[in-house]
Amino acid sequence: MKTRAAIAWEPNRPLEIEEIDLEGPKDGEVLVRIVTTSLCHTDMFTLSGKDPEGLFPAILGHEGVGIVEEIGRGVTSVKPGDHVIPLYIPEDPDCPYIRSGKTNLCQTIRETQGLGVMPDGTSRFSYKGRMIHHYMGTSTFSEYTVLPEISVARISTEAPLAKASVMGCAIPTGMGAVRNTAKVQPGATVAVFGLGAVGMAVIQGAKMVGAGRIIGIDTNPSKFPLARGLGATECIDPKEFQQPIHQVVIDMTNGGVDYAFECIGNVNVMRSALECCHKGWGECTVIGVAGAGEEIATRPFQLVTGRVWRGSAFGGVRGRSQLPGMVDEWLRGEFSVDPYITHNMTHEQINTAFDLLHAGESIRSVIHFRPDETMRVNSLPGKIVPA
Amino acid sequence: MKTRAAIAWEPNRPLEIEEIDLEGPKDGEVLVRIVTTSLCHTDMFTLSGKDPEGLFPAILGHEGVGIVEEIGRGVTSVKPGDHVIPLYIPEDPDCPYIRSGKTNLCQTIRETQGLGVMPDGTSRFSYKGRMIHHYMGTSTFSEYTVLPEISVARISTEAPLAKASVMGCAIPTGMGAVRNTAKVQPGATVAVFGLGAVGMAVIQGAKMVGAGRIIGIDTNPSKFPLARGLGATECIDPKEFQQPIHQVVIDMTNGGVDYAFECIGNVNVMRSALECCHKGWGECTVIGVAGAGEEIATRPFQLVTGRVWRGSAFGGVRGRSQLPGMVDEWLRGEFSVDPYITHNMTHEQINTAFDLLHAGESIRSVIHFRPDETMRVNSLPGKIVPA
Repeated sequence: MKTRAAIAWEPNRPLEIEEIDLEGPKDGEVLVRIVTTSLCHTDMFTLSGKDPEGLFPAILGHEGVGIVEEIGRGVTSVKPGDHVIPLYIPEDPDCPYIRSGKTNLCQTIRETQGLGVMPDGTSRFSYKGRMIHHYMGTSTFSEYTVLPEISVARISTEAPLAKASVMGCAIPTGMGAVRNTAKVQPGATVAVFGLGAVGMAVIQGAKMVGAGRIIGIDTNPSKFPLARGLGATECIDPKEFQQPIHQVVIDMTNGGVDYAFECIGNVNVMRSALECCHKGWGECTVIGVAGAGEEIATRPFQLVTGRVWRGSAFGGVRGRSQLPGMVDEWLRGEFSVDPYITHNMTHEQINTAFDLLHAGESIRSVIHFRPDETMRVNSLPGKIVPA
Repeated sequence: MKTRAAIAWEPNRPLEIEEIDLEGPKDGEVLVRIVTTSLCHTDMFTLSGKDPEGLFPAILGHEGVGIVEEIGRGVTSVKPGDHVIPLYIPEDPDCPYIRSGKTNLCQTIRETQGLGVMPDGTSRFSYKGRMIHHYMGTSTFSEYTVLPEISVARISTEAPLAKASVMGCAIPTGMGAVRNTAKVQPGATVAVFGLGAVGMAVIQGAKMVGAGRIIGIDTNPSKFPLARGLGATECIDPKEFQQPIHQVVIDMTNGGVDYAFECIGNVNVMRSALECCHKGWGECTVIGVAGAGEEIATRPFQLVTGRVWRGSAFGGVRGRSQLPGMVDEWLRGEFSVDPYITHNMTHEQINTAFDLLHAGESIRSVIHFRPDETMRVNSLPGKIVPA
């Protein structure tokens, strides 16, 4: 079949929308029509060429929502018409990592996914006979995409597809890091470095678990009103201080925070996030993805005196078993996704979404593949970017 | 009063035993007669001059056991005749850190202890009018020493003083890191880097909690028989492999260990200990103390994919409330301290103890202040070093 897709031909070149060829789902695979997708820094990171595992040409995109159109042989857990969120970390109940109960990092298709192909070693995407890579096992910048069955989470059909895409990465990543990875306790003091969508979700998650103080930190103060709206009790801009930011936080908090989160991917900030933690018990969770070969460093004394350095991927969320429940929480009003959506646009405008993200002007831009279907909704949060 | 003490006049100079002056205990302080003390790498580290907080002249020693001789005003929790272990991490029930229940890192006298003086800012030690520093708040290389009340743990009088000194640091540090800090689970796979006394205690602790595999790692294979005797299921020498040791451990364990412990103080080994941990859940606990200004480093991807980097001081043990119970465990035969004691000698031979430790020939040398009292015991473990 044919599908419209935004192709990343090479690093640092705007995406090009083309009609490409898509093979249907093979055994254990599903064909999904992506209804909306949103843009995450990781897509921008790969497009920049700094991602050592980035492959080109590729169909980027890993934060989306769609409808199952067709299933391959052997697929039993979803059927056409189901609403699904593509998972860049799949959940195979037979994976030893998943069976351990200790991690969400399913390994079943890790190798092929890293190579930009389906589990059988081939791509479903091509353009004029040239193979195009899948990306993160999801490739949501194509209107139609093929995914392994273990890479889709079936969600409630009541979740509005116009905005559910942000449940594909940012919100579970931030909220899950708070609840599953760091296990933030009620009354705790929390520092959040980086107020993009993930940082905002950390703030929201920290508020939901009853954190006492939530300090948002960003060099772009235009993020502060939203951060405060989601639950930050204070927001600070490191540029406003002479002292290093970790010392500023220590001074503000009588010795440091109970939990810090790095939501940027900057190795220096990862160190600050650790070192602003309270001696004896403070825990730093690294969420951001650093550039190729970059390293974090600290004096081991930081650890010996009781600080803990850990990390989180997709918020420790097991996608198929836990993400649908998080969508239900949203639908019950336990949190809102609306504040994350700052812009809406068509597939053709996707490079504008990159520009907005790069400029720090958007939290999430939602790309609507069929604007007539989802972009005319009255309750749509965020601006509609004029064509 | 007068006391015999081994003085560290300056870095890298053998200790000199002199009769020095000791002021009696002031308010809230106790005078303890040290019966035995043993030698730890930390003493050697300070004597080497590499410890940035090392002060000279000083009376070193922090692993000992003794008898309360006299108490200052206001002391209520111990009385003359009590057997006590000096604590280099005190436990003040009124310290906010202790009250938090989250750490053993009592801060009450941290500042003065770091300055080598008692809480009132003065030293009790002097030689011909020249002030001599306390060390780690304990100074067990003096036959008589003065400590704050919060820095002594009263233990059972049934514990043989001839060998209880090793309960002052090595054993609680290693065993506590397993039980309190890492919380090693039954059946777990454990890697122990560095088979000195602390590493041996990690092995013993891991065996006590039911670890399934315990891999001892040291470049000195003469440590392997004892490590196996204490519970190591395998011992490896990194020098025997072409591959980096973290990769060797990963290959041996089908993906890495559940828990790794660094018991050396080498920042490169700290990295290996983290990176040999299993993706998704492996936890590295740093116990060793690194040199001044040294840093640990890794790719943050190690953390984001589920590994945890933490540290432990004195095994997370709260000395006054928990150490006496560990001594009772020893007395009940739940573990033995005998294997740690490889040498016994007199106070005058203390520089020999440094030489043996430096050469990797001893695990613990016990210094007997009154050999007639404790060194003629029939059941004494280890060799008696000839005078």
